Amino acid sequence: MEILDISHLVRPFGVREGSVVLAESVGYFPNTVHLAVVDPGVGSLRRPLVLVTVEGSPLVGPDNGLLLPAADRLGGVESAWQITNRELGRPDPSSTFHGRDIFAPAAAHLAGGVSPSRFGPQVEAGSLVQLPLGKVEQAGDSFRGEVLLVDRFGNLQTSFRRTELGQLGLGPGDSVELRLGGRRLTAVLRESYSFGAPGELQVIEDSHGNLAVCVNRGSAAELLGVPAAGSTVVLARAEPDPEG
Amino acid sequence: MEILDISHLVRPFGVREGSVVLAESVGYFPNTVHLAVVDPGVGSLRRPLVLVTVEGSPLVGPDNGLLLPAADRLGGVESAWQITNRELGRPDPSSTFHGRDIFAPAAAHLAGGVSPSRFGPQVEAGSLVQLPLGKVEQAGDSFRGEVLLVDRFGNLQTSFRRTELGQLGLGPGDSVELRLGGRRLTAVLRESYSFGAPGELQVIEDSHGNLAVCVNRGSAAELLGVPAAGSTVVLARAEPDPEG
Amino acid sequence: MEILDISHLVRPFGVREGSVVLAESVGYFPNTVHLAVVDPGVGSLRRPLVLVTVEGSPLVGPDNGLLLPAADRLGGVESAWQITNRELGRPDPSSTFHGRDIFAPAAAHLAGGVSPSRFGPQVEAGSLVQLPLGKVEQAGDSFRGEVLLVDRFGNLQTSFRRTELGQLGLGPGDSVELRLGGRRLTAVLRESYSFGAPGELQVIEDSHGNLAVCVNRGSAAELLGVPAAGSTVVLARAEPDPEG
Repeated sequence: MEILDISHLVRPFGVREGSVVLAESVGYFPNTVHLAVVDPGVGSLRRPLVLVTVEGSPLVGPDNGLLLPAADRLGGVESAWQITNRELGRPDPSSTFHGRDIFAPAAAHLAGGVSPSRFGPQVEAGSLVQLPLGKVEQAGDSFRGEVLLVDRFGNLQTSFRRTELGQLGLGPGDSVELRLGGRRLTAVLRESYSFGAPGELQVIEDSHGNLAVCVNRGSAAELLGVPAAGSTVVLARAEPDPEG
Repeated sequence: MEILDISHLVRPFGVREGSVVLAESVGYFPNTVHLAVVDPGVGSLRRPLVLVTVEGSPLVGPDNGLLLPAADRLGGVESAWQITNRELGRPDPSSTFHGRDIFAPAAAHLAGGVSPSRFGPQVEAGSLVQLPLGKVEQAGDSFRGEVLLVDRFGNLQTSFRRTELGQLGLGPGDSVELRLGGRRLTAVLRESYSFGAPGELQVIEDSHGNLAVCVNRGSAAELLGVPAAGSTVVLARAEPDPEG
Repeated sequence: MEILDISHLVRPFGVREGSVVLAESVGYFPNTVHLAVVDPGVGSLRRPLVLVTVEGSPLVGPDNGLLLPAADRLGGVESAWQITNRELGRPDPSSTFHGRDIFAPAAAHLAGGVSPSRFGPQVEAGSLVQLPLGKVEQAGDSFRGEVLLVDRFGNLQTSFRRTELGQLGLGPGDSVELRLGGRRLTAVLRESYSFGAPGELQVIEDSHGNLAVCVNRGSAAELLGVPAAGSTVVLARAEPDPEG
């Protein structure tokens, strides 16, 4: 059995951010037990879960929305189980570190062949906490989406995808308007970071197929502030500045 | 042989902090060689050590107090050995990176079956540098302890344990007074972070059985400043504010 | 096959910094495929490379100077190959994450025994992008070198080595003058960090044989600002301050 750490860099309490990292990772790991813990509700009544997915790799973690986007990438939830069986965790679990006392032992038992049904009662998939990701809504000539993730380069991953650019009739080299945190900015559509001058504000299709707001050889997060995951961002065709 | 990294996040020169991380980790790893290096005195006369513990897993690192609390968790020191045998390290060791040149090779040789006595002369356990952790003293109606560790969530782990709460006659939901860095604060005793409103200053029994000062969905370290490990903290029953 | 992570802490766009980390690491890993990606030009025309070295361990990464100093430590480049064979990478590679889509798959195939010549056409070693490291020039009674790396302790690794100290006739305990970022500072030559008082500015031969600017139990980077890798630093004998 091999253990791989995908990330320990999700910000504290960043359930939404963690759910993006997880969803974007699971596709690269066939036949894997995925353990994810971003768990501000640890010790409360939120349920500890084992999710069996249609494509087979199970997910282990808290019922706070963290796991569902990843389950969607794996074909959806086939069955969901609440972890209640104390014999499959550490004795006397703490009320503050279920990652160590409940979730990691459960993931290890799953990897060792224990059947999901042994962890506890089955749970209705419809009752699981949802934290919808990636909403994009059209509003006239613009699209309203959200910031999904800020990476360590300061790139802001958004819920927009290439589709929105097509609908706006925009392509590489075109300018685009962004509204974010009360500011209105103009960025240039580029095929990768190094097109355009250093310091240029850019919109780029990132390696997950999402549009990202970037600064060539710089940090968009530093330029724009670090918006919380879930912040609204609007994408529109850039209009000529009437005062410019 | 498998290598696991517990932490690379101990602050520079944080011997005391490293000793807490190590002590709180060793119990989860049976039959393991533990290598720990927080070593501001590298290149000086401080001794490089192999400690054989009563429960069996040996510890490797500098004689500056880093290893002893962990040894205590493993039943205590059975025998201590100074690493002097140059043949069990890198040739021409640097004077600034004994982790690479002396300690890691020693740990690898131990894991490979080399006897502790081959590393060098035996050392009196009583002569090892001690850095006592977790002192708690009663002073009238209050207890004086210390900050052991600040984690990446900004929680301050203290040397207090549930015992002190019992002696003060306090339980979940009660208020408690903290004195820390010249400030006097009121916190609420909670069973886990998510009890109480977001932003609430809390005292919680953490996953190692110590009392931690926390902010629900926030950072106590950000609120209170990041006290150095070893800073004094006083715990008392909260008195009504005479001016309030 | 075992995967080891040397560092994920190279600063964004720090090609020069990454090349130092890589060059200083490869010697410790015999029979290893080295994968290194610091790649601000991802998606542009810069070539993806496999470098076969004289000592055998191949290097995989972008043609931006990142790999050559490491190749020099491994006896030099024996043959260089441009990665163009799409069958040895992920289908539909992104234009922003060649680490995942091109370089890591290539490294995995190399480790699995695929011949370097199968990745694409051979490249003239003389055509590879060079980013020379470690230049030291004598200028009268002083030496002009550069900052190679700032580590997490705030130590500034320079391109100077013990040779320069010898030529200046300086040894442990002597004072030395540093000019860096428009400032002129006096440091003390020490054999390791803990010689001298806490807070002392020091020059020390580090564990790679380079001279490093350090503060005992502190951070030279905090004291002096964090100079970019490649910044000029001048080393001279300390002169008595005429105004002092």
